Amino acid sequence: MSESNRGLGLQLRSLVKDGELQLSLARVPIPAPADDEILVRIEATPINPSDLGLLLGPADLATAKVSGAGEDAVVTARIPPQLRRATAPREGQSLPVGNEGAGVVIEAGAAAKQLVGKTVAILGGSMYAQHRVVKVADALVLHDDATPRDGASCFVNPLTALGMVGTMRLEGHTGLVHTAAASNLGQMLVKICLADRVPLVNIVRKPEQAALLKGLGAEHVVDSSQADFMGDLIAALDATGATLAFDAIGGGALAGQILTAMEVVAARKGGGAFTRYGSTTHKQVYIYGGLDTGPTTLNRAFGMAWGLGGWLLTYFLQKVGPAEAARLRQRVADELKTTFASHYTAELGLADVLDPGTLAAINKKATGEKYLIVPQKSA
Amino acid sequence: MSESNRGLGLQLRSLVKDGELQLSLARVPIPAPADDEILVRIEATPINPSDLGLLLGPADLATAKVSGAGEDAVVTARIPPQLRRATAPREGQSLPVGNEGAGVVIEAGAAAKQLVGKTVAILGGSMYAQHRVVKVADALVLHDDATPRDGASCFVNPLTALGMVGTMRLEGHTGLVHTAAASNLGQMLVKICLADRVPLVNIVRKPEQAALLKGLGAEHVVDSSQADFMGDLIAALDATGATLAFDAIGGGALAGQILTAMEVVAARKGGGAFTRYGSTTHKQVYIYGGLDTGPTTLNRAFGMAWGLGGWLLTYFLQKVGPAEAARLRQRVADELKTTFASHYTAELGLADVLDPGTLAAINKKATGEKYLIVPQKSA
Repeated sequence: MSESNRGLGLQLRSLVKDGELQLSLARVPIPAPADDEILVRIEATPINPSDLGLLLGPADLATAKVSGAGEDAVVTARIPPQLRRATAPREGQSLPVGNEGAGVVIEAGAAAKQLVGKTVAILGGSMYAQHRVVKVADALVLHDDATPRDGASCFVNPLTALGMVGTMRLEGHTGLVHTAAASNLGQMLVKICLADRVPLVNIVRKPEQAALLKGLGAEHVVDSSQADFMGDLIAALDATGATLAFDAIGGGALAGQILTAMEVVAARKGGGAFTRYGSTTHKQVYIYGGLDTGPTTLNRAFGMAWGLGGWLLTYFLQKVGPAEAARLRQRVADELKTTFASHYTAELGLADVLDPGTLAAINKKATGEKYLIVPQKSA
Repeated sequence: MSESNRGLGLQLRSLVKDGELQLSLARVPIPAPADDEILVRIEATPINPSDLGLLLGPADLATAKVSGAGEDAVVTARIPPQLRRATAPREGQSLPVGNEGAGVVIEAGAAAKQLVGKTVAILGGSMYAQHRVVKVADALVLHDDATPRDGASCFVNPLTALGMVGTMRLEGHTGLVHTAAASNLGQMLVKICLADRVPLVNIVRKPEQAALLKGLGAEHVVDSSQADFMGDLIAALDATGATLAFDAIGGGALAGQILTAMEVVAARKGGGAFTRYGSTTHKQVYIYGGLDTGPTTLNRAFGMAWGLGGWLLTYFLQKVGPAEAARLRQRVADELKTTFASHYTAELGLADVLDPGTLAAINKKATGEKYLIVPQKSA
């Protein structure tokens, strides 16, 4: 991209400075696309849990204050001193936010003229803005009947759900466990696993979430709020043979409980011969989210053949390579209104985000709740 | 092996039954070796931390009582109800104990006559006994100047230490961190890393342990009892570039602290560009022991490129294959009195183990303390 005289557009910025988070809208020049680039007018961009770390950091929103109004509002909130080590690397940098979004191509470089007027979805940061220039190769052209709202959440949730199934195959497991399973992502995973005949254990936290997933056709749904959660989990693991879990929650005892339940099943299947080190079945939990940012607690009652780790979509895509990534993206475009349909709680203009009450609602990360920013909405 | 009329020998047994642990000596027939087997008179066999799980289970030794005396003593201790799920698979089985040991070949099958009179070391369980039959391939013949006491701890600690360096190479790391580093195993690791020029960060818990390792030539020793432990650890990780740790402790915050310190170093080296997901440097901690059987607590302040898992020598040896395993064993035999020398706190006859006070001392797992069973000592 290069300098241009296309005027200015709004872009949401997050700044950490002197122990404080600051959110504001910057007016930035609308860039010109290079030969292999397109200029996209962003029409819809979701607030994913994975955006919140960059957007809000570990700020204490109970301390949030706002000065100014509309597009000139500035929200500030305090970062607790004990959490400031984590934000040191971003100190003083005014950072754009927003992993993914969709919009209409309004200008294109010489090699991409045919894309003008098309609706495209984009992954790549800085999406909480009115405009974004990207390389043609980084845009997913949607089918003609798809709107930007249909395509706004095209990448993070769909590819993460597909990546879980892909990781299962790569690492030699034959079934999956998923937590916070009633999320938008969880609902996609249920549909993918039904279509691909992958045994899936869904862990939810409320009876109504269990009902929702059962309504989608999910076979194994376990409610961690029930008294015999561990018994139910063990039964579901026994039925599915799942030895790989993806955990959106992160904090608390759940990851360890899953490993423990897997070990109970593996020990039974091992025929009862006792070994000091537990079963030789490798049991794995990947933490891919942080709905609970508190500590993860493991009781380690699951032998020695286990692993816990972080999982990130970008690392998975690097591992499988560009051809497989393109295949997965095309599946998303093809099944955008069915398997990969997203639902939103509310639509917000860019300036609407600069409100402590709205930020608190977003930060609740209630399962199944999701907000969509529509950057062209005027303040 | 087959039935024989060689008389009886003593064998230590551990039994879990009705919520109670029971330790006793059984009188078992001395077996005859098959063609490819040898009969070994066990002269020395160590009590490793890795033996304690099978020997003592999760029994509460404060409740230990003894009935009978000498070779007929029986120790019983209560297993707390909340820990009984873990012992269910061994309920009612009278299990022999002892991972490794050394002794003299007193009889041999047709294919192994030349071994009679040789001193050999053995890995394979049931070593807390006066006799053991093993396949020739499972015995390591020691050099002629080595005694059974020299060779008693030939496998578990030496191969574990060598396995740590091997895992580092297999998984693409270039330096190591080790906890409870003043242990017998830790001292071996210091010597191996000096010889092989592997950067090593030793974490100890007391100033005198730091002094001991410095005396062996260790360059990076960090004391977790000091006020600026995290600062010292970060500096040592920065100097060594270590991104792989082996943790003997398991419980508590230490594994997470190591990952956090690794992430601080990785973020610095990344040049300061902030990403929500932390550095892309993969940071790994393997828990190979359980000196602290309490829960492992992770604060997850280390991005998404991390892993924590169990590590077991047998899985490592399976992964590298028999040729590499044989090469490592030969190195142990060749450097038995230098790199791989072990030190013992006390020698115990089999019947001496059946004493609540002795069991409590063993179960303290104090760093650097180690007990040797000499099964031929009469009660």
